[in-house]
Amino acid sequence: MTGFALDMSDIDAAAARLAGHVRRTPLLSSPFLDQIAGRRVLVKPECLQHTGSFKARGAWSAISALPADVRTRGVIAFSSGNHAQGVAWAAAAHGAPSVIIMPSDAPALKIANTRALGAEVVLYDRETEDRDVIGDTLASERGLSLIKPFDNPVVIAGQASVGLEIAEQAADLGVDSAEVLVCCGGGGLTSGVAMALADRAPGLTTHPVEPAGFDDVARSLSTGAIQRNARLSGSICDAVVTPQPGELTFPIMAALCGPGITVSDDQALAAMAQAFLRLKLVAEPGGAVALAAALYRGDVLAGDTVIAVISGGNVDPAMFSRALATL
Amino acid sequence: MTGFALDMSDIDAAAARLAGHVRRTPLLSSPFLDQIAGRRVLVKPECLQHTGSFKARGAWSAISALPADVRTRGVIAFSSGNHAQGVAWAAAAHGAPSVIIMPSDAPALKIANTRALGAEVVLYDRETEDRDVIGDTLASERGLSLIKPFDNPVVIAGQASVGLEIAEQAADLGVDSAEVLVCCGGGGLTSGVAMALADRAPGLTTHPVEPAGFDDVARSLSTGAIQRNARLSGSICDAVVTPQPGELTFPIMAALCGPGITVSDDQALAAMAQAFLRLKLVAEPGGAVALAAALYRGDVLAGDTVIAVISGGNVDPAMFSRALATL
Repeated sequence: MTGFALDMSDIDAAAARLAGHVRRTPLLSSPFLDQIAGRRVLVKPECLQHTGSFKARGAWSAISALPADVRTRGVIAFSSGNHAQGVAWAAAAHGAPSVIIMPSDAPALKIANTRALGAEVVLYDRETEDRDVIGDTLASERGLSLIKPFDNPVVIAGQASVGLEIAEQAADLGVDSAEVLVCCGGGGLTSGVAMALADRAPGLTTHPVEPAGFDDVARSLSTGAIQRNARLSGSICDAVVTPQPGELTFPIMAALCGPGITVSDDQALAAMAQAFLRLKLVAEPGGAVALAAALYRGDVLAGDTVIAVISGGNVDPAMFSRALATL
Repeated sequence: MTGFALDMSDIDAAAARLAGHVRRTPLLSSPFLDQIAGRRVLVKPECLQHTGSFKARGAWSAISALPADVRTRGVIAFSSGNHAQGVAWAAAAHGAPSVIIMPSDAPALKIANTRALGAEVVLYDRETEDRDVIGDTLASERGLSLIKPFDNPVVIAGQASVGLEIAEQAADLGVDSAEVLVCCGGGGLTSGVAMALADRAPGLTTHPVEPAGFDDVARSLSTGAIQRNARLSGSICDAVVTPQPGELTFPIMAALCGPGITVSDDQALAAMAQAFLRLKLVAEPGGAVALAAALYRGDVLAGDTVIAVISGGNVDPAMFSRALATL
């Protein structure tokens, strides 16, 4: 695994910094899910992570790695959601100030949560303002460190801890061959999990899962070059919609992942409903795409075991009720 | 702890039989819940247990303790819900047949789940039929072993594993003093947790929590003698409504528990909504009463830490949407 932006020593170092601070989420199952999928389904519920998503891992990894004098000045992040909460939480736990730049049309719950976690939220208008100018100005004025959401080796190393845990938990269950499905936006979680599994559980193959119509990663993998999404809005799976795979994450995914898989919005909603009914878990639409693939895309899966990461659970009540209405 | 129907050796033996078969549920928290409660709130989510409730523990304990030749003939249980699913699941895992006697007006989801878990469900009409006659006839015809839902030492010993885990998890967090709130019906979980904590974490005091108007345990504890509920229907918290505390569980609770606490249906619904929002967990109304007490009954709590057991998550979508509508 040479030529990547990080190596296993970075991943192990991140895991050591995360130990005792992020939750080791369990690996859950239900005979009812196995029945739907026609194979054994194991679920890694990162919705149970601090702040309700895996983003807490990458944020902790990045902030804990900053030199103390740099960290004291504070951190800044651009995010409309889960990354924002992860950075706010990890910064507060380190006693560092955080500034989060969010679009003014971000979900109200996510804005409120980010503020309540201790961050200063700066809103901008997507139509008329340039968030990079706002961010650069604040960062230089205050000496803030930018925490990128995915294209950052130390963030990828933090997300990789999900893969380290899956490798150990699968081995405990005697599972040495499986497809591991990961909800994929910019590829931070997917590339981190792929590296960890390639090294620690080589019989487990990582696949990115995306919403249909926003399958930049799947198309980039199949063509061998970074492809962009034609549009960035119109999916209910907002948490996993990004313009294109990262410059750092794409080479890792291209080298280590199997083909990308897509699911429809209806399949994501149905997976949320099954997570409610069978696992007693709250998943957000984007966080449920991997479970949706496990349950409803058997046409592209092989083998007798599939492992799906639920990446987050920060969903508004109205959207959750919409998922329940599919039952 | 002499004079009880079981002792710590029974509890340790049950824990050994459960190891590797029931889930060790985590101890979760959220700064948002701490803020509502005005103290640190730790949550033990038994909704994540197999079959969606702690009942899987007691059922496994009882069925695993049967002699093999007796177990082969099968088991029988009377239950409208979570105990039924626990017994069906544990019996199937042991390769034993199970018969569940349920009222014909039990929630459709619970009947369907119990059947899908492999049980033979026998429905009876609460108004016109005597379930005991039906059960006795079936049991004697087939040589089935009755698995009582709470007034059974080996079932209590299984539920006590929740207390053993809380004792260890609280110690890991440095918590040596707290009130532990337990959703209470017949008292199997509450008495088991109380015994485990009294022995392994004596600074942790167990309190039963019940729906207002169905507070037979609280009144029994305050008067020192078993009291009955005036009615058995009319609460949304069906999972924790029983006629009266058990003959075996009451002496344990009387000796080891602090006063009972009651919550309103609205408080239970609000706690379900907070579990959704802050913990990404699905709780059923009866399973949320302890969290409701932790969040909204600060008037009867003391100390800086409270631990609440969410006892189950088997809730119909319509009731869950009702809870979400309180947000």
